[in-house]
This record gives sequence, C-alpha cells and structure tokens, in this order.
Amino acid sequence: MIDRLVNRIKKLQAPVVVGLDPMLSYVPEQVQKKAFQEYGETLEGAAEAVWQFNKAIVDATCDLIPGVKPQAAMYEQFGVPGMAAFEKTVSYCQSKGLLVIGDIKRGDIGSTSAAYAAGHLGSVQVGSRSLEGFHEDFATVNPYLGSDGIEPFLQVCREHKKGIFVLVKTSNPSSGEFQDQLVDGRPLYELVGEKVASWGESFCGEEYSYVGAVVGATYPEMGRVLRKIMPKAYILVPGYGAQGGTAEDLKPFFNKDGLGAVVNSSRGIICAWKNEKYQKFGPENYADASRQAVLDMIGDIRSIL
Amino acid sequence: MIDRLVNRIKKLQAPVVVGLDPMLSYVPEQVQKKAFQEYGETLEGAAEAVWQFNKAIVDATCDLIPGVKPQAAMYEQFGVPGMAAFEKTVSYCQSKGLLVIGDIKRGDIGSTSAAYAAGHLGSVQVGSRSLEGFHEDFATVNPYLGSDGIEPFLQVCREHKKGIFVLVKTSNPSSGEFQDQLVDGRPLYELVGEKVASWGESFCGEEYSYVGAVVGATYPEMGRVLRKIMPKAYILVPGYGAQGGTAEDLKPFFNKDGLGAVVNSSRGIICAWKNEKYQKFGPENYADASRQAVLDMIGDIRSIL
Repeated sequence: MIDRLVNRIKKLQAPVVVGLDPMLSYVPEQVQKKAFQEYGETLEGAAEAVWQFNKAIVDATCDLIPGVKPQAAMYEQFGVPGMAAFEKTVSYCQSKGLLVIGDIKRGDIGSTSAAYAAGHLGSVQVGSRSLEGFHEDFATVNPYLGSDGIEPFLQVCREHKKGIFVLVKTSNPSSGEFQDQLVDGRPLYELVGEKVASWGESFCGEEYSYVGAVVGATYPEMGRVLRKIMPKAYILVPGYGAQGGTAEDLKPFFNKDGLGAVVNSSRGIICAWKNEKYQKFGPENYADASRQAVLDMIGDIRSIL
Repeated sequence: MIDRLVNRIKKLQAPVVVGLDPMLSYVPEQVQKKAFQEYGETLEGAAEAVWQFNKAIVDATCDLIPGVKPQAAMYEQFGVPGMAAFEKTVSYCQSKGLLVIGDIKRGDIGSTSAAYAAGHLGSVQVGSRSLEGFHEDFATVNPYLGSDGIEPFLQVCREHKKGIFVLVKTSNPSSGEFQDQLVDGRPLYELVGEKVASWGESFCGEEYSYVGAVVGATYPEMGRVLRKIMPKAYILVPGYGAQGGTAEDLKPFFNKDGLGAVVNSSRGIICAWKNEKYQKFGPENYADASRQAVLDMIGDIRSIL
C-alpha cells in the first residue's frame, strides 16, 4: 500500500492528502437543509449532511490528490450514523482510486489493538466468512503503550498489505509536555522515532516502509532530526495551513528524492469556501473552492521541492 | 458522576467493573448460532451475538457491580453494526443503573478531541437540537498529546457531569518502553500522574476528582507511588486476573478509606464459562458462571481492604 501511495504521489506530483474532517459548521446551509429535510434534525441528518459534503469535495478533487485523511472523531461525534458516514466516505474515496488514511489515533494492547487493527485495516472472522469493517488503507496509531500496542497492527498490515503512521511529534502547542521531555539528554519523540524506524525496518515496500510517522509541520527543526532518524518512514505532516505551518516549514520533512512526506490540510481545503481568498465561489460552489485550494496548496508545496 | 460511582462502590462494597470486551470466540456457540440464523454470517450477525451475550451477563451481574467497562475496539472490529451494539450495550447498562466507562483510549487535539468528547460524553448540536452519540458516563483518554488533548474532554465533563480516566501506567509488558523513561531522574508516568492531579484539582466531586487515572494491577509498586501523587484521583485498575494481577497486588491502589480504586476484570468474568473452575455451569449457563466469577472477585478484593 505504501508503494501505491508513493506511486500516486509521484504521478500526480502532489505529496498531499485532504483531511475530510467535517464539522457541521463547515457544511454550507443548503447541504444541511436538504439533509435535515430528508432525515430531520437527527444524527442521521447530520451524518447525511457530512456525507454529501464529503462526496462533492471528493468529486471535485480526486483527480488532483493521491489520498484523503478522514478524522474519525468528526464522524464519531454523530454516533452510529456518523460512523456509517465514515465507512461510506472510505468506500467512496476508494472507488475513486484514492488512498484512505484513517486518522483514528487508536492505541491499546494485545488482543485489543488487534481488534482495532482488524476493524480498520484487516478483517474479522464471522462464522465461515472473513468480513471487513472500516477497511481504510492506512491508520494513525498512538505509541504511548509501547510495542505491545503496535505489533498487532504490524501483523494485520503484513497480511493485508496496509500501513500505519505512528504519532511521533504532534502539531499542537502542548505536544511538548510529554513528547519533548528529555530522556538521557534526548527528547522522547526521538526515542519514539527510533522505534518507528526499527518497527518498519523489516517491513519495507520498494523505497519506503509500511510503518510511517506523524510529525507536525509546526515543528520543522524536529522534522529535520526525525527525517534522519527514520530515513525509510513516510512522514504524514499535519499542521500546514490553518494550524500555521508554511511551505518553507515543510522542506525538512522531505528526503533529497523529493519524497518521504505527505502533507495534510483539512480546514484549509474543505472549509475554503469560508475563506476570504475563495469567497468568490460562494457557498453554493464550495467544492470548486476546495478544488482551487488544493491546486494552490500543491503549487505552494511544489515550489519548495 | 464520580460521586455516583463512589456511592455505588460504597453501597455494594464492590470496587469492581466488568469489562464487556467480547471477542466472538468468547460467545457460546448457541448464542452465535441463533444470531447467525437471524442475520446470517455478517457483521450484523456478529454484532447481534455480542449484544445478546452482553445482555445476559449484564442481567446476571447488575445487582452486584457498580458499573461496566466496554472496550470500544471489540465493537469497532465489527464495523458500523459493531458500534451499534456498543451503543445498545451502553444504553442497556445505564437502564439497569450501571455506570459505563467507555474504554475508548481516544486522544487528539483541539476541535478533534472536543469531537470525541462530544460523541462519547457530551452532545452535538444538529440544527436546533442537542443530540447524544454514545453517551457513556466516563471515558479513558490517552495523554500523549498533552493538555491540548485533555482540556476539551474536561470542558465536556464539566458541562455534562461526566468523568475521564487518563492512561498513566498501562498494564502491558511493554508499557515501560516510553512510560518508564526517566525524565530528570523520574519516570515519565510520574510526570503524567502529576498532570492528572493538576487537571483534576479544580474539578472535584465530594471526595474524589472527576479526573481519574488508569494504572495497571501488574505494576503495584508504581501504583503505590502514583496513589500518593494523585490522592484525589480514582484509579481504574486493569490487569487483575487474566493478565496476572492478584488481590494482594491491588492493595497499593486503594487509599486508607478503602476507596480510590476500581478494578476491572474482562476475560476473567465474561469468559468464566470457559474456565475450568466454572465449567460445571456449562456453555448454556455462561451468564451464571459470570455471576459466580464476579462474586469470587468481589470476595477476593474485599479480603485485602
């Protein structure tokens, strides 16, 4: 799967994923209204609004981008109907040829981690049948519980040719509270980065490993160090755009081959219609605004490669 | 909600929750068969089997225990129907007067953490209505992202009188890989414990804080230290029974008032019918086996208080 991601990034010259993280407030009124007319002001109505919103953005951008990164929380907030919209979004994106990174940040131990891995990347055995739950192509994973939490994911990835991105240094302001603490004179995130490199060592595609990392665009200096510690890991980079990361900040995340990083933008793309820069599109044409924002983002990132 | 938990623990003299973490292999054949007859060998069929299994165990134990701790992963593995079984289980337990700790181990940043908190402990605004998704009473939360990930949960907890348990020192063998790393000569989990105490300081019930912690029964010495660092935090203790923790190991987790800890057992209870000790019940009477296992567990824990 990592090879498919790398190949699509090369082909499209676009190391970019769109974060499909729809708050209801991002969804233009006409879309909400239509969904509520059909399903009422219910969780089903909200889920329908989110799904229609996603679908239009995917249709408008799928020829430009290698993949998407739906954020599970934004669907889970709408309960079971929200999770159904999540699954529908994953399926639809895959039918359009997009790779899907489930931003689920799960992490547990042993059989529990195995269950998360089965539900999101693998399959479960039900009687005589093997069935898939949410079937993303990649998932983000939290490392706080150590190798016990990661290995079950690796096993499922091997069987199903899927991949993971392990949280190493997150993009938020307080990420340093624990991640930057010095252990033998070196920050904890470096230790986690070394683990990511070792987990991925024996599990490589053609050029890159099936075990990637999450490192925030808001910390370019740390990105530089982590790039060296994990040379074979694809880095999923959140924090570009709305969170403050610029194209210049992204340079250290890439290898000399111009590969090795894939940058996520969520609000900057899906909420473009609310941005002054794209207001000429109007709420009716929110998907076109998203397309333009993707084009601008790709141009911006190409300028530093 | 923490007051309700403490009061129920006092009343029942049972600092115990049952981990409703059903693998399909834990569900006796006759239950699976019936579910598959109705729904086929589908995710819906698996979810129905799990739900019927849970229901019988809840019916057989709800007069003995203050609450349950369903593990989200075990439901998520069955996709959307699995999440529906999770929600149904939460609702049913609450209708029986049980408190529900959603073992979701979520953790993200800002608006994303807020969405998880809304979906699991709070509510979302849909048009003019405020709606609840999974509506647990407590949730477990991963601290790797720092305060940014915790505060949105605290806000929702305040509004909705819910509580959280933050992962501090987990029960698994490799939990030390990152959690035990020394920071200024002290292990990282102590630092996390101090944060838990400070997050909970201004958010207390009658005796205990709304911000609890998860510390594994498999690490009693660390439990002793953490008990002192977080005197007001209720400690949710996994790892008793199947993972190797004994009643003696639990002592350090309790305060002198005999309160301050609530012990989880999952496999030991819900899978009791497969245990030699309870095999006289037979697979038909799996719920009675669970009841006996709960009684034995409560007796075992009372012996050290």
